[in-house]
Amino acid sequence: MEDKFEGLERAFNPRSVVVIGDKRQNNNYSFLRAMATFCGNVYSVNVDPGEFPGIEALGVKNYTSLLDVPDPVDYAIVAVPRQIAPIILRDCIHKRVGGVSLFTSGFAETRTREGMELADTITKMAKEGGLNLIGPNCMGIFNPKIGLRNTPDQYTGNGGSVGFISQSGGHAINFSIVGHNNGIEISKLVSYGNGYVLDSTDYCEYLLRDEETKIIALYIEGIKDGRRFFNLLREGTKVKPILIWKGGQTREGSMATASHSGSMAESNLMWETVIKQCGAIKTDNLEELVDTVMMLLYAPAVKKNRVGLVSLSGGQCVNMTDVFTKQGFTVPLLTERSYKELSSIFAIVGASYRNPIDLGGNLSLSESTRRALLGRDDIPSRERLLDITLDILDNDENIDSIVIEMSAHLMEWFKEAFPDFAEYFYTTLANFRKKSGKPIIVVIPPSKVEIGAIEMKQNLLKHGIVSFPSFSRGAEALGKVIGHYQQHR
Amino acid sequence: MEDKFEGLERAFNPRSVVVIGDKRQNNNYSFLRAMATFCGNVYSVNVDPGEFPGIEALGVKNYTSLLDVPDPVDYAIVAVPRQIAPIILRDCIHKRVGGVSLFTSGFAETRTREGMELADTITKMAKEGGLNLIGPNCMGIFNPKIGLRNTPDQYTGNGGSVGFISQSGGHAINFSIVGHNNGIEISKLVSYGNGYVLDSTDYCEYLLRDEETKIIALYIEGIKDGRRFFNLLREGTKVKPILIWKGGQTREGSMATASHSGSMAESNLMWETVIKQCGAIKTDNLEELVDTVMMLLYAPAVKKNRVGLVSLSGGQCVNMTDVFTKQGFTVPLLTERSYKELSSIFAIVGASYRNPIDLGGNLSLSESTRRALLGRDDIPSRERLLDITLDILDNDENIDSIVIEMSAHLMEWFKEAFPDFAEYFYTTLANFRKKSGKPIIVVIPPSKVEIGAIEMKQNLLKHGIVSFPSFSRGAEALGKVIGHYQQHR
Repeated sequence: MEDKFEGLERAFNPRSVVVIGDKRQNNNYSFLRAMATFCGNVYSVNVDPGEFPGIEALGVKNYTSLLDVPDPVDYAIVAVPRQIAPIILRDCIHKRVGGVSLFTSGFAETRTREGMELADTITKMAKEGGLNLIGPNCMGIFNPKIGLRNTPDQYTGNGGSVGFISQSGGHAINFSIVGHNNGIEISKLVSYGNGYVLDSTDYCEYLLRDEETKIIALYIEGIKDGRRFFNLLREGTKVKPILIWKGGQTREGSMATASHSGSMAESNLMWETVIKQCGAIKTDNLEELVDTVMMLLYAPAVKKNRVGLVSLSGGQCVNMTDVFTKQGFTVPLLTERSYKELSSIFAIVGASYRNPIDLGGNLSLSESTRRALLGRDDIPSRERLLDITLDILDNDENIDSIVIEMSAHLMEWFKEAFPDFAEYFYTTLANFRKKSGKPIIVVIPPSKVEIGAIEMKQNLLKHGIVSFPSFSRGAEALGKVIGHYQQHR
Repeated sequence: MEDKFEGLERAFNPRSVVVIGDKRQNNNYSFLRAMATFCGNVYSVNVDPGEFPGIEALGVKNYTSLLDVPDPVDYAIVAVPRQIAPIILRDCIHKRVGGVSLFTSGFAETRTREGMELADTITKMAKEGGLNLIGPNCMGIFNPKIGLRNTPDQYTGNGGSVGFISQSGGHAINFSIVGHNNGIEISKLVSYGNGYVLDSTDYCEYLLRDEETKIIALYIEGIKDGRRFFNLLREGTKVKPILIWKGGQTREGSMATASHSGSMAESNLMWETVIKQCGAIKTDNLEELVDTVMMLLYAPAVKKNRVGLVSLSGGQCVNMTDVFTKQGFTVPLLTERSYKELSSIFAIVGASYRNPIDLGGNLSLSESTRRALLGRDDIPSRERLLDITLDILDNDENIDSIVIEMSAHLMEWFKEAFPDFAEYFYTTLANFRKKSGKPIIVVIPPSKVEIGAIEMKQNLLKHGIVSFPSFSRGAEALGKVIGHYQQHR
């Protein structure tokens, strides 16, 4: 057992990597190009002289046999025709490679006799030879801190705290990239495909031990040893949040997993029950996974589900109330004290400030009208309605979390009346995040300014504020995270 | 009754517009600036000498009384303090204005005695004076073909076929703008707020008669005369598709509608039943509304729900199958003939080509590998896998609609191996749209290239192809539209 972890430790943190069988036809040496950022030694193994110039042009030394590579090899990526795979794996065993990612597909998932037999051969070889075989039919390991990537499209440089274990290479790479766009940095990631030798349970066990990894997410199509996995899950969730996206939740989806990773159908009800009872977090697609991990990373832990809603239009107030209520939140009245404070700055004409609080109408009333309606002169200027409102909600004991709706379009609109509105908005939220123990999320609904919405999300993330493109995605992510904290701690 | 329609006809297609009470404080004369594109005469009425220079700077002639305006007035926008509203409405009645949009708020929705009394006063005045009062607490009419706008942010120039009737000004403007970004052009739009005199039923009746309007969408918080509305709805859906977004679906949401437009709570179950029985289409938020209208505009009518799914990765194949199955679609086997054709171009190693069809693996196999696996030399080049697959699905009698997953990130990725991939992709889909009677939708999932996804959506729209940012939004919109065609025609 310890051998396995020693090998995985070498494979996830290699000092030397060998890419076996990469070629121009593979999107212009994709695996070798991905290694351009790797901070250790990289070698190529290829027997086709036609590929030698292309490999050399990348500055990588090529050998015609793995056994000729001078260094010890911690991690190997193998992309050879399936018939060749056993020969290469034999060399990997001789060379005592720490871990081997077998990209090659065409095994049991093809449901052909040849594929099945090859699957048996490589599985037996790896088990007997003590080889840490990752895959086959997978993209292997991503460790951005040391520049070890699955594809040349991934980022490097920042070590993060999120581990991802995925039976799909596409989902693995997408999660790393889309996550990165959303403030999620990866500690370690593995795409493990058919998982003949090492399965989700092994990787999960490894990441539970890994000190850099604080949150673990899994995309699973099927498991080899259910009892072992669920025992690990039950104990693991006590230590780190674990999110599970199960692919193949329907009969038709299970048929697709069979052709994808060769996974057998398991009951979806069984999975739902186990995830819940083990205290893991269920997510059903990439967006939910990214949204929920983002919330776990950026928002303080709360266990109660009473939200304070703030918007800039009456229609959005109605919609966000509908969405959050349907998602199981309560939208309570504030305390008397809060209403007293709000009524000293809000004129009732032009909007409601119960809960939801509609800032829009009052922002568009003139100062003289507001003074007239409030019956006094010493009122804060309308520019300050947002930060005062947030402070009131922060101090209100009836409210656990705060949701603000702000479109990129309105950010531009307000420039006309308040030239510094954007700066005020970001500063207000950043200050709130620094001083408050309550989660705050921004919903940036679809608007005229589609590119502006992307910039806004990035600006908010810089200040540690999470945002979502719809109320429902915000409500879903906040709900999942609150559910997690209710079950743990 | 005919008077009402004559007035609405004038208000929706005015030759002269008067803006009463606009001021710099209102986001720098927002209503007057919105009229910059109007192709008829625009006048201002304002009694505050401090505003005269600002109004004149916009090139608009100001009068201190509506009665001084020389032309007949077809449409007036009124933005005065609520106490002044009755005086202005009296002038509008004298002037025989075609329709008056009363932006001013602070009536029954404030639940104050003053607000209630003013509401009664203006309602009685309008009814007795035969005045087509739109609102109060609303943004009025948008008719892009004649440059008549609610705000300076809206587009003009294209007359469309979609009518929108909204009790929220924010939702109205958002729908016009977000819709425009998604290939939806407005024929006529009205934000009608509290709807004291003219209600959703009146506007719906008007747009059912309007020849430019082919599809009608409504955002409703409450109705004055349910029986009349539902009778109209039952007959109207036989003539034009009608979509309804009901705001205030929950008890908490209804409380928000009360403060917003002063609407009373009605049972959500009642609304759901009525929408269904009357053959209207239920949508619950802006995205659903835009998505569904887009499908109605761009996709051929089909009544069956068997989808052919095409993706570029195995993991996405699994996810799209799960999502479409959960949404009530079937993902059937293709005909034997289709499989025979597919097996002549697809090598089983590297991916599945049942349904879903995974193009990714075969696109990344080298031509020599494909020839070897397929056992012959005369195979189409891998670049052509997409158009051949689409043709096979088009001819397959088991398939009614087609869904393709393609990320902006993969579009860039493929450039490396196929420099013209993007052009090939768009041309293939455009050709399919021209010749096929089956809906085809593209799902552009989140990826590295967030701005690229926006461009891709726009490029697809140019070719008449709809796209969605997630499988679930695509499945939802396609499902709603199929449901509509099952009930009608």
